[in-house]
Amino acid sequence: MLPSSRALADDLCVSRITVLHAYEKLSNERLTETRPGSGTRITNDRTLLDRFRRASARRFELEVPDQSMKHTQTAVFGASTELAFRAGIPAFDAFPRALWTRLVSRAAARSDPNLLDYAHIGGYLPLRAELARYLTASRGVDCDPLQVVIVGSVRAAIASFCKTLLNAGDQVAVEDPGYAVARKVISRQGMEVVPIAVDEEGLRVDHLIADDQGISGAYLTPAHHWPTGVALSQDRRKMLLDWAVAAQAWIIEDDYDSEFRFDSAPIASLYAHGSGRVIYCGTFSKTFAPSIRTAYVVVPQDWVEAFEKWSFYSGTEPSLHIQVALADLLAEGHFVRHIAQMRKLYGRRREHLRDAIQRHFGQRITLELPPGGLQAIATLPAEVSARDFMQKAEAAGLTANDIRNTFVRRPAANVLHLGFAPVPEIMIDDAVRRLEEATRTLF
Amino acid sequence: MLPSSRALADDLCVSRITVLHAYEKLSNERLTETRPGSGTRITNDRTLLDRFRRASARRFELEVPDQSMKHTQTAVFGASTELAFRAGIPAFDAFPRALWTRLVSRAAARSDPNLLDYAHIGGYLPLRAELARYLTASRGVDCDPLQVVIVGSVRAAIASFCKTLLNAGDQVAVEDPGYAVARKVISRQGMEVVPIAVDEEGLRVDHLIADDQGISGAYLTPAHHWPTGVALSQDRRKMLLDWAVAAQAWIIEDDYDSEFRFDSAPIASLYAHGSGRVIYCGTFSKTFAPSIRTAYVVVPQDWVEAFEKWSFYSGTEPSLHIQVALADLLAEGHFVRHIAQMRKLYGRRREHLRDAIQRHFGQRITLELPPGGLQAIATLPAEVSARDFMQKAEAAGLTANDIRNTFVRRPAANVLHLGFAPVPEIMIDDAVRRLEEATRTLF
Repeated sequence: MLPSSRALADDLCVSRITVLHAYEKLSNERLTETRPGSGTRITNDRTLLDRFRRASARRFELEVPDQSMKHTQTAVFGASTELAFRAGIPAFDAFPRALWTRLVSRAAARSDPNLLDYAHIGGYLPLRAELARYLTASRGVDCDPLQVVIVGSVRAAIASFCKTLLNAGDQVAVEDPGYAVARKVISRQGMEVVPIAVDEEGLRVDHLIADDQGISGAYLTPAHHWPTGVALSQDRRKMLLDWAVAAQAWIIEDDYDSEFRFDSAPIASLYAHGSGRVIYCGTFSKTFAPSIRTAYVVVPQDWVEAFEKWSFYSGTEPSLHIQVALADLLAEGHFVRHIAQMRKLYGRRREHLRDAIQRHFGQRITLELPPGGLQAIATLPAEVSARDFMQKAEAAGLTANDIRNTFVRRPAANVLHLGFAPVPEIMIDDAVRRLEEATRTLF
Repeated sequence: MLPSSRALADDLCVSRITVLHAYEKLSNERLTETRPGSGTRITNDRTLLDRFRRASARRFELEVPDQSMKHTQTAVFGASTELAFRAGIPAFDAFPRALWTRLVSRAAARSDPNLLDYAHIGGYLPLRAELARYLTASRGVDCDPLQVVIVGSVRAAIASFCKTLLNAGDQVAVEDPGYAVARKVISRQGMEVVPIAVDEEGLRVDHLIADDQGISGAYLTPAHHWPTGVALSQDRRKMLLDWAVAAQAWIIEDDYDSEFRFDSAPIASLYAHGSGRVIYCGTFSKTFAPSIRTAYVVVPQDWVEAFEKWSFYSGTEPSLHIQVALADLLAEGHFVRHIAQMRKLYGRRREHLRDAIQRHFGQRITLELPPGGLQAIATLPAEVSARDFMQKAEAAGLTANDIRNTFVRRPAANVLHLGFAPVPEIMIDDAVRRLEEATRTLF
């Protein structure tokens, strides 16, 4: 269904006549059809769209591991995306659009010719300086601006870690269960992935040490383990860092959403322990918006040059105007305020989700609210498969997030993620009601 | 020297009071000093800046090959960048800033939540569709929107070419002389670089065939060879494509600035010959601005998925708002108009440079105006070294561009690039006069 010409004109900041002309053209080309009283719809004659969708579907059946990415395939095509209950994304409805528009517009309007030029390969220095200040204050990542290297995504940060500090064929320990995309990035960089179990204190560092036959790197999510949400305990942290120092191994800490903790202060970063063996990375995808495509990696002084060179030769620098706008976002205090507001908002949405699940599903779903992050873990009765549940949800236009691919060795067949961050409070109850309706026959 | 508070306030769209407060703070921290009648300057007590500059200088002595990149190290730090006579960059003074600001701002203001989400890994589909249309019309690159994959830079395009179509250790033919950064990207991806000579008809394809002991890829700049500006002749094109088909080899065509030809119509792309063995890539860096950090690669249908996956796992997708703004730039006709305007502008600047060199240097410099591109080739007398010439120019705040690093085997010691695109016509004569003054003692 196309939006009304008035709504679209508002949205695009163009005149309504322009929109009406465009709609007329689409209609003349038989791409849309209008029925009296029911607005304008796209016809079924959508060769390109269909081919695109087929290609997408095929692609994701084959390989791309994260359920959350599936949505992104159709998202920018303008298909309506159901946000309830996607995991790993922030609240788009609470994105400070007017502020961001002002910052981006101001950056683009600056007359400084340097802002049109090739940027420093490590990133726009004021952004590096702001991030150094922010990470020092909020995450205990005490670093110099030049140690912060700006990249396009955490994926790029992990790839640069592998290529810069490790050699092809090296063993890299990862959490099992753990972030499937990270495993894939690591193995595509020519490394051998060594899965290590996780329990309620995080990575089984004792297993890592026992399995170590030349492990030279480790990827983990210590503040808020993906997908379980547990934090790496103090004892394990010490053991892990001692191991890294002794083995001369490198650790990459993915601190993807540690800003959002609801019951306690954020957990310190592993980097903060100061062993010198930890590479820290984070992203604006959870704290601001995924489409910004900007992340950062904090590296030891001696390795800055090597990481910058990797960035240069692989070509992952974000657009300079975006970096300028982000630097201003931090420098003017908006970023810290936004995170504080989102923490409160997500705290409320998390509780709404818990209450609604209790109300509609009763004992049928055990919902575990992790102390932080953007999603809860739902455990179904042993006889109900998460796969069936997700399919029923999807058919009803809802998302239950597959986390089976996070397991390397023992997939749990009856757990899944329900994201609460992107769902406005007033919509949560109704969405959970629809979820219950759609999946009732499974229980 | 800092700009006046009024000028800076205008530039940043903030009130002058804000700027005065900031200036006062800088002064209180002794980072600036004000002398009556001569404005405000940065003091010499600039620990961070100095360290940054030292680090940059060291870095470029070590490895990063392109002279043009050197500038980018200090550029974003706000040091005044002398644009005369940098090669490989467009006219920043003619950048349509108001238009771009409007487009970026409109993209950021769109209420569509999909524009905050993860984007399709191959790029924003409307941009892919616009590029397919543009490339078909202007470069004979007849392709489907889904064949266009959006990446962060030509470097990323070359890296994806190596990783997707070739295997580690494969031989890749490159032009000698040729683009040094491309050679480096190729070798960092684990390939063996095989340099092939270039003459006035472009790549010596006969040498390539004679040297072929299992060459499986070739990187070249057929429309406008870097650094000589020659075009690959029709005979050579045919020979090259026949070879690629017979050898089952892949060619990557870097079409970086073919839009700018002054005396004739643009030369068709190699891709247009339709052998199916050519991967095409181009960039907005020359046609719009390097800081946009967006490029594109056109790949055969069967390989789209593999290239998209490479993009995903290496994390090089540009920010979605930038992609939306670029899609609008093309869709609304601004892009084609901008290129047409720049072609005229660069044609004038090119002639101004020729005349000014003739006027100030007479017979001392032989200036070769290539039929296209953004720079001329200056040949010095055999006894004058380009290195000395560049150093003298640099000391006078001017840039003569080193192309020695483009040669693998026989560096020419007395040739360099002089860029005409970024220098406003009224400044060309004076800049050439200063260049002559600075280098007079060498002749």
